[in-house]
Amino acid sequence: MPSKESAELADLYRSWVAAMTAKPDMELEEIRRLFSHWGDVTADPTRVDYQEIEVEGIPAMWAIPHGAVHDRVLLCSHGGGYVVGSMYSHRKLFGHIAKAVGCRALIVDYRRSPENPHPGPVNDMVTAYRWLLECEGLKPQHIALTGDSAGGALALTTIAAAREKGLPLPVATIPMSPWAGMDLSGQTYDTNKDRDALVSRDTTRNLGSLFIGEKGDPKDPLANPLYTDYSKFPPIYLTVGDAETLLDDSRRIAERAKEAGADVRIDVFPDMQHVFQFLAGTAPEADDAIKRMAEWVRPKLGLS
Amino acid sequence: MPSKESAELADLYRSWVAAMTAKPDMELEEIRRLFSHWGDVTADPTRVDYQEIEVEGIPAMWAIPHGAVHDRVLLCSHGGGYVVGSMYSHRKLFGHIAKAVGCRALIVDYRRSPENPHPGPVNDMVTAYRWLLECEGLKPQHIALTGDSAGGALALTTIAAAREKGLPLPVATIPMSPWAGMDLSGQTYDTNKDRDALVSRDTTRNLGSLFIGEKGDPKDPLANPLYTDYSKFPPIYLTVGDAETLLDDSRRIAERAKEAGADVRIDVFPDMQHVFQFLAGTAPEADDAIKRMAEWVRPKLGLS
Repeated sequence: MPSKESAELADLYRSWVAAMTAKPDMELEEIRRLFSHWGDVTADPTRVDYQEIEVEGIPAMWAIPHGAVHDRVLLCSHGGGYVVGSMYSHRKLFGHIAKAVGCRALIVDYRRSPENPHPGPVNDMVTAYRWLLECEGLKPQHIALTGDSAGGALALTTIAAAREKGLPLPVATIPMSPWAGMDLSGQTYDTNKDRDALVSRDTTRNLGSLFIGEKGDPKDPLANPLYTDYSKFPPIYLTVGDAETLLDDSRRIAERAKEAGADVRIDVFPDMQHVFQFLAGTAPEADDAIKRMAEWVRPKLGLS
Repeated sequence: MPSKESAELADLYRSWVAAMTAKPDMELEEIRRLFSHWGDVTADPTRVDYQEIEVEGIPAMWAIPHGAVHDRVLLCSHGGGYVVGSMYSHRKLFGHIAKAVGCRALIVDYRRSPENPHPGPVNDMVTAYRWLLECEGLKPQHIALTGDSAGGALALTTIAAAREKGLPLPVATIPMSPWAGMDLSGQTYDTNKDRDALVSRDTTRNLGSLFIGEKGDPKDPLANPLYTDYSKFPPIYLTVGDAETLLDDSRRIAERAKEAGADVRIDVFPDMQHVFQFLAGTAPEADDAIKRMAEWVRPKLGLS
């Protein structure tokens, strides 16, 4: 039985879908305004400061929990199909995770599509990662990545892109409900059609086309984590809800990474919606997931 | 005609009233959770940092707009009948105002009632004001007060309490929709009964009894700004919606302050709800009000 409180996220998603269904020609600006309310279901983490900065021209935000160590960092990529969502909608979510881990979080407001199509977002993330290494002086073994949905994909593809550029790799990554972009073949698109309150094949088709463009390759390994090369990857911990149409994306990413020899853990949370961690401080399932994420990543970051 | 966007606040208020009506024995914790969503209708001000601190044991938060001058401060008291609301629910609202003024805002999380009944909240505000003078080294002529609803009352009563303690007075105050506490005699409680989506005589009675307690004096001039002594007060700029049941509270506060010789301006915004400034960045009426507040207070703070 899911907690009563966890219904708040499904209610929010249903209100978005209803608004978009009622107005099929809704402008992008209005859709972005809808999704700017993603964090409304997240309780305030408390004792977390927020500081906006620019990283090589890319807007970003530090979430700084009181008492956090400063030489360990979570590099965070927000979700929203590369098109919606922002460092503002996700500040509390990543604030909770950083607080649980006891380190700072850098939330990157990578330039979104369609203004900045693939490989724009993943390049922005690599820029931020390189900045942490070269300008902030962080060690790669003291950086972990996390993100949700499209940002969960970025928490994987950014590592592959960093490797291509010859950068040392971060110590771990924790994608939440990662989105395999333009791939529509997951069986859970069908089996969870009536359970998932937000994501359908239409969502994926619409957002994916804005992100990858007409000329893009939907199987580009830096755009779609189903095709990423996971050999010599750092450890991966995936969390996903079992009511999600995107459940199969997470499962198949985990399989593919395992086949490539990566150290992979995947936890599937019963009855949970897409990125249920947004319910941090609101529903116990989200707090449980964040606690597991923190316990998994802390020793990897050298935190006891 | 009110803007379409301004309906968002009335919708939020109606959802709270419906939830509380459906569950008359709702626990205080649950009511506080409802009101923690007050800021959901406020757009993110952007380029504003937030830093939590403690001021003599009282939680507080700096809202620091990029480019703000640091030696001018808005001292901010949030609304919620002294019982609900917090520095979190109001961070974006005060962030917008501070950004428009171009200075820092100190949002005080004064201890709320019933745990901390009158004069607890006003004493906490005076403590924060004194801290700005004595520990932050600010000049009184570089500090202005602002607040909404019960916090709008505090933006007046804090000045009277500071005077009683022999402190130099701040340069100005900008109460938004201030609440005259336990006073139920405003005619707009009747004439705006069907227009105001949130506040009724019941609201005032319930919250007021938690704040003032059974033994308190509802006409205490430090608890009720209808009875505050406004002689030698700094200039006051009141903003209020004309759909509010509390409209008469603002009007009568303005009259009383004028009679005492204070420099008073009051702007009444057609068709606006209680603390419509929460719609900052969402509805044009809120942005207009905040622009007027900033233009009024900037020269008083010595900002050109």
